[in-house]
Amino acid sequence: MKEMVSGFSKKTKAEKAQWVAETFASNPAQTLEVFKTYTHPDPKVQELHDEFIENTLANYYLPFAVAPNFLIDHKVFAIPMVIEESSVVAAASKAAKFWADKGGFHTKIVGTEKVGHVHLNYFGPSEKLFAFFEAQQAAFEEALKPLTASMKKRGGGIRSLQLVDNTHKLEGYYHIALSFETKDAMGANFINSCLEQLAHDFSTKANEAFSAEEAPEVVMSILSNYVPHCTVRAWVSCPLEQLAYEGVDGATFAKKFCRAVAIAQAEPYRAVTHNKGIMNGIDAVVIASGNDFRAVEAGVHAFASRDGQYRSLTKAFITKTQELHFELEVPLALGTVGGLTALHPLVKQALDILGRPSAEDLMRITAVAGLAQNFAAVSSLVTTGIQKGHMKMHLLNLLNAEGASAEEKEALVAYFKDNTVSSAAVKQALNRLRQ
Amino acid sequence: MKEMVSGFSKKTKAEKAQWVAETFASNPAQTLEVFKTYTHPDPKVQELHDEFIENTLANYYLPFAVAPNFLIDHKVFAIPMVIEESSVVAAASKAAKFWADKGGFHTKIVGTEKVGHVHLNYFGPSEKLFAFFEAQQAAFEEALKPLTASMKKRGGGIRSLQLVDNTHKLEGYYHIALSFETKDAMGANFINSCLEQLAHDFSTKANEAFSAEEAPEVVMSILSNYVPHCTVRAWVSCPLEQLAYEGVDGATFAKKFCRAVAIAQAEPYRAVTHNKGIMNGIDAVVIASGNDFRAVEAGVHAFASRDGQYRSLTKAFITKTQELHFELEVPLALGTVGGLTALHPLVKQALDILGRPSAEDLMRITAVAGLAQNFAAVSSLVTTGIQKGHMKMHLLNLLNAEGASAEEKEALVAYFKDNTVSSAAVKQALNRLRQ
Repeated sequence: MKEMVSGFSKKTKAEKAQWVAETFASNPAQTLEVFKTYTHPDPKVQELHDEFIENTLANYYLPFAVAPNFLIDHKVFAIPMVIEESSVVAAASKAAKFWADKGGFHTKIVGTEKVGHVHLNYFGPSEKLFAFFEAQQAAFEEALKPLTASMKKRGGGIRSLQLVDNTHKLEGYYHIALSFETKDAMGANFINSCLEQLAHDFSTKANEAFSAEEAPEVVMSILSNYVPHCTVRAWVSCPLEQLAYEGVDGATFAKKFCRAVAIAQAEPYRAVTHNKGIMNGIDAVVIASGNDFRAVEAGVHAFASRDGQYRSLTKAFITKTQELHFELEVPLALGTVGGLTALHPLVKQALDILGRPSAEDLMRITAVAGLAQNFAAVSSLVTTGIQKGHMKMHLLNLLNAEGASAEEKEALVAYFKDNTVSSAAVKQALNRLRQ
Repeated sequence: MKEMVSGFSKKTKAEKAQWVAETFASNPAQTLEVFKTYTHPDPKVQELHDEFIENTLANYYLPFAVAPNFLIDHKVFAIPMVIEESSVVAAASKAAKFWADKGGFHTKIVGTEKVGHVHLNYFGPSEKLFAFFEAQQAAFEEALKPLTASMKKRGGGIRSLQLVDNTHKLEGYYHIALSFETKDAMGANFINSCLEQLAHDFSTKANEAFSAEEAPEVVMSILSNYVPHCTVRAWVSCPLEQLAYEGVDGATFAKKFCRAVAIAQAEPYRAVTHNKGIMNGIDAVVIASGNDFRAVEAGVHAFASRDGQYRSLTKAFITKTQELHFELEVPLALGTVGGLTALHPLVKQALDILGRPSAEDLMRITAVAGLAQNFAAVSSLVTTGIQKGHMKMHLLNLLNAEGASAEEKEALVAYFKDNTVSSAAVKQALNRLRQ
């Protein structure tokens, strides 16, 4: 089959692009031309981007934007956000401004514990495994010291290391659970290296101490992206009378708002989309800061289901003193050193614009972006509905999809100030204009 | 405070960039220069990207790469992947090649149902609400017809519409649940427009039929990203004797592999990272194809927790006929028309390289990318460990972070063929080379 290829990864970037275009594209010359225009003008910078991963053909663009006027713990930020979805940055900016004169956003780091496991099979008597582990634990810890020395200098390292019996979950399943403090690093490579070292030492000692049939066996060693003790809390609060929103008085607005959040606590179909909106804000900062959004997403949504039902990550209530309190607690294992943070030129700029934050600072800022996003979404939902604002923001995309000229765009942006935007309405209005 | 700003969204792109740089950057001129170099050479194309969202300052790069040799339902694909993490594309390519001569990947669309809800408060007698709803249902459906006409022409539309009593979840909470078929569109705007129309009609009729105190009240109307009936299944299978992997014989490898997946079924700490690896593959295709990864992530992880415990999305077992069967079922609400698919030049190329897939085709391809990723990750974990391959792939990033020259990179890539890669080892080796 002509579509199969050998030694692809060994080809040059140009050869790869050419093979892909000629084998799969409907217009190979055009495909190659598009790839070429999505290239950085400086070949050194382009090489850097090419080497992030394997088989790179071009630079995919996501908009790098900024949401200003965030007052967080009494300091003002303009938050860099990388996201392709219309209206997210506009909504964040609107929420930021709304809360700036009401005391702004407040945050608290609840914990910074990261975790990893050496997963084991063992079918002998449990006491024997625990006795072996206790006898060897000090030696295991000692053997990890060369790996943890530099992290220790920065105030981090391994915080605990224990054997856990999980046979109630799965027959013969134990793991060694480690907890880590990794300071300003996200720590994945550090944690995995420690775990693999421990797994190696454990296997060696276990093979000496147990018979071949009975010896515990390492299945795998890997960090966990489930970090329920690496969380940050962000909240806003203000008296109801300051809460008038889109023509709705403060007390009524607060009641509607709290009810919408309560529904997202009770109903998974709503909770998923509610939390998706929070992640619109969170991921936008995660990507801008060079962190791994799949890791954050997995940890956050698992956290949302931790009590056995998938629920809202935010809660909202009216206090006895007639204030609205609106709060998000979310697990965020982020880094501001290592990984892409030291490599991607726009990540460096994003971190600089944020005042070169520590990992804890970045947790705070990121959680606030999520809370702001949720405030904006729920506020729209319980007042004007979500489509009005969203479709206004999406209008330029709809016009661009129809190939509207600059003059046509100007005319129709004006027209849609007082008319409902929809894909069909845009097509109609454009046709009228062109007749 | 100088860091607060009014009318920011009304400024030009250049004015925004200048204000941000001057107010927050440590070296404003440098920040502006970096933004400028991350600009498309064609001003028309740049304008298109700027208008995706609000307050755009630059184009953020993610690598656009391709993983070749995917045999899916007897057809060969090179899958475009957009991802910043080292080794994901390499792992996908390796898994693709491994399975290509074992029958490749197989898929099945289980369902394509999308859903949305009008969420209601109602504290009167339940029968009265249901009686009202039954009496009005035909009129509600009739009023939606102008909105659904064009979708109906394409074979889609509203599939069902029913009132649901949720008062066991939350006092006074009902919703109108709608299910939709949106064909090749992801359908978010279509669904939300239908829901808001229905909410409007429902309110109007309810205010006529009920007293002011008793009338049901619309809290909000919105689609759900929880789509447990919009799923695709992807699987591979082959006789154990063909499964030798990294020096481990097929039967042993399959046993270790199935055990690792069983642990991810039983243990949430493992399940989260296991599924995160699946999402490395899935999100890379979701982004390349112009879809919304936050929507997919939220739906997928909620699906993983649907039985009350967060679990692996894949399962693996050895059949009676001594074959390994490895399978993923995952909810994926994707579109191949509308949204960014018609706008982003690289998304257009990605879809073209994939043969201009229908939404169902794209579900199949995306699920396969997730399954391949999981196969590669678990295979590494139970044989060589994850760090060896990952750090080799990450080596160029570590060298770039240290400012290595082309000659230094060449020398050290050769050196690390036989030596363990770590951040510290790279620094040491580079220092030796420079002495």
